[in-house]
Amino acid sequence: MSGDAFRAALRREPAPHTPVWFMRQAGRYMAEYRAIRAKASLLEICHRPELACEVTLQPVEKIGVDAAIIFADILLPFEPLGLGLTFTAGEGPAIAHPIRTRADVTRLKPVDPDTDLGYVLDAIRLAKRALNGVPLIGFAGAPFTLASYAIEGGSSRNFAETKTLMYGDPETWHALMDRFATMVGEYLAAQGRAGADALQLFDSWVGCLSPDDYRRYVLPHSRKAIALAKAGGVPVIHFGTGTSAFLDLIAAAGGDVIGVDWRVSLDDAWRAFPDRGIQGNLDPCALFAPMNELTARVQDIMAQANGRPGHIFNLGHGILPTTDPGKARAVVDLVHERSAAPV
Amino acid sequence: MSGDAFRAALRREPAPHTPVWFMRQAGRYMAEYRAIRAKASLLEICHRPELACEVTLQPVEKIGVDAAIIFADILLPFEPLGLGLTFTAGEGPAIAHPIRTRADVTRLKPVDPDTDLGYVLDAIRLAKRALNGVPLIGFAGAPFTLASYAIEGGSSRNFAETKTLMYGDPETWHALMDRFATMVGEYLAAQGRAGADALQLFDSWVGCLSPDDYRRYVLPHSRKAIALAKAGGVPVIHFGTGTSAFLDLIAAAGGDVIGVDWRVSLDDAWRAFPDRGIQGNLDPCALFAPMNELTARVQDIMAQANGRPGHIFNLGHGILPTTDPGKARAVVDLVHERSAAPV
Repeated sequence: MSGDAFRAALRREPAPHTPVWFMRQAGRYMAEYRAIRAKASLLEICHRPELACEVTLQPVEKIGVDAAIIFADILLPFEPLGLGLTFTAGEGPAIAHPIRTRADVTRLKPVDPDTDLGYVLDAIRLAKRALNGVPLIGFAGAPFTLASYAIEGGSSRNFAETKTLMYGDPETWHALMDRFATMVGEYLAAQGRAGADALQLFDSWVGCLSPDDYRRYVLPHSRKAIALAKAGGVPVIHFGTGTSAFLDLIAAAGGDVIGVDWRVSLDDAWRAFPDRGIQGNLDPCALFAPMNELTARVQDIMAQANGRPGHIFNLGHGILPTTDPGKARAVVDLVHERSAAPV
Repeated sequence: MSGDAFRAALRREPAPHTPVWFMRQAGRYMAEYRAIRAKASLLEICHRPELACEVTLQPVEKIGVDAAIIFADILLPFEPLGLGLTFTAGEGPAIAHPIRTRADVTRLKPVDPDTDLGYVLDAIRLAKRALNGVPLIGFAGAPFTLASYAIEGGSSRNFAETKTLMYGDPETWHALMDRFATMVGEYLAAQGRAGADALQLFDSWVGCLSPDDYRRYVLPHSRKAIALAKAGGVPVIHFGTGTSAFLDLIAAAGGDVIGVDWRVSLDDAWRAFPDRGIQGNLDPCALFAPMNELTARVQDIMAQANGRPGHIFNLGHGILPTTDPGKARAVVDLVHERSAAPV
């Protein structure tokens, strides 16, 4: 069955075919998702386990991916932390009370994932039953990426406020990162206990840092989060974008599988961490290419992986809202065809 | 005199001290610039050589940099091309007639830099005289970065429209890039004839590409632009951000000096192109750090360069509008102190 491929790749064991899933695979590019969003906001879908479960299953049914990822948002823990989270149409997340001082860190409320984020765990339990053996991925934002949102108050282009705090008040920075590392690690472990088959840590914006800054300000905290997450034995996928200058450090922070974007060749990635699996790395914009060009790009990634155990096919970042679902389905079929072991 | 340091570094010859300038050094962080902006828009300053000259000189006088860069904008050629260029407060550039089809490329008007951008050349002539020996840098946007603005219609986060055209209609893509390469090369050469001592090609957004895409869709065009620019013998600085995965290809496209951002260590950069100079690479956000941390970061870059001829100290991207000019001045003084040859 399909779930075997994903589970084998997580352990870097030979798989019946290369497993494939897409970051943000339950999202606006799917008509089925938009139908749910027409009646519920993003936060409402997250808060209602039966809705979160429903959209989690959609890409498994419609796109044929080898794993589901629970529908949630990396910023959900900001609600119990007391940061004030809203999503504005087209503008992305907005944080009502950004963190700028040590007092702001001290003021953060304790978060118990089992109670404060229990609705995510309930959604995992529901989806796990409904998926009937198809693997389910839980996830959380990495300490750095969460800190950047908490400090900037939303999305950012140059992360000036984040770096100002990091460079100017390293004690407060490390206190915040330690809080987030513990919270994220415990939250991921709870998702594993609820039934998730793998746990992905999203460090989406860490590529704005120099290698030295990553080593000094981020690595120890990501390592702690991953160690806590792995305590229950569920494999961890550690993902970042723009990490080509410090792949070795990303791997040093931990993760059974390292997720990379399209700017990293799989060869370079495996040279940097020969003992891990690799997830990636099609440019999400490749799905806007005509089929012949898209096919060539998928084949090129398959050729780079060269059948080596431990490759999970994915995009290098989230699937874009204007993507044609037929193209996403075509990529899944291509990956399966090209990697299926001869009968 | 100070100009000797910059000119020596361009030729990778020993310099009396490490020269330093900042991208966007004439900009909103300076009260003197804001005073001019209070009475003239960005485009008006560009269009009036006496104003452009005045703001070009400001950072030489107030910050003590070793070179001036002519005040202009990489998108100015969009006006004679007929693309329709405006700048909206806080939103950045807006292109009235974005390029999406072959017909849009065919419709582009011919650009003669001597007439259509003569006001930039006049500003260079004025500034050159006023600078009294301090070197003056001319510049232009690289074909890819210009194409991304022309296709997206402004700034972009994921460059989806740009890549859609690139992957979906490579003939139109290459036709556009060839037009831009010729225009940019001729424009830079004209700036050299007008008196610029160095010419910088800004490929600010090229880091969104994979190495293979850079090689296939960008490298030949940047190479052509640089070859045309260099025809008059003026040295070229080739700058990009997020290029750590393909430094060798950036160097292969050309440039006497390669500009890198803070995600690239100078050691890695010099390994990738031992026969070129290096410009960079302080994180612009480091200027928000307290003086002791800022000093340590400047010293770290100086230690990496290790007195090797051909290092031009700069930021890894443009100086940010909220920067304290006193910090910029302090960096200049530090670089000069730390690198001054013993008398």
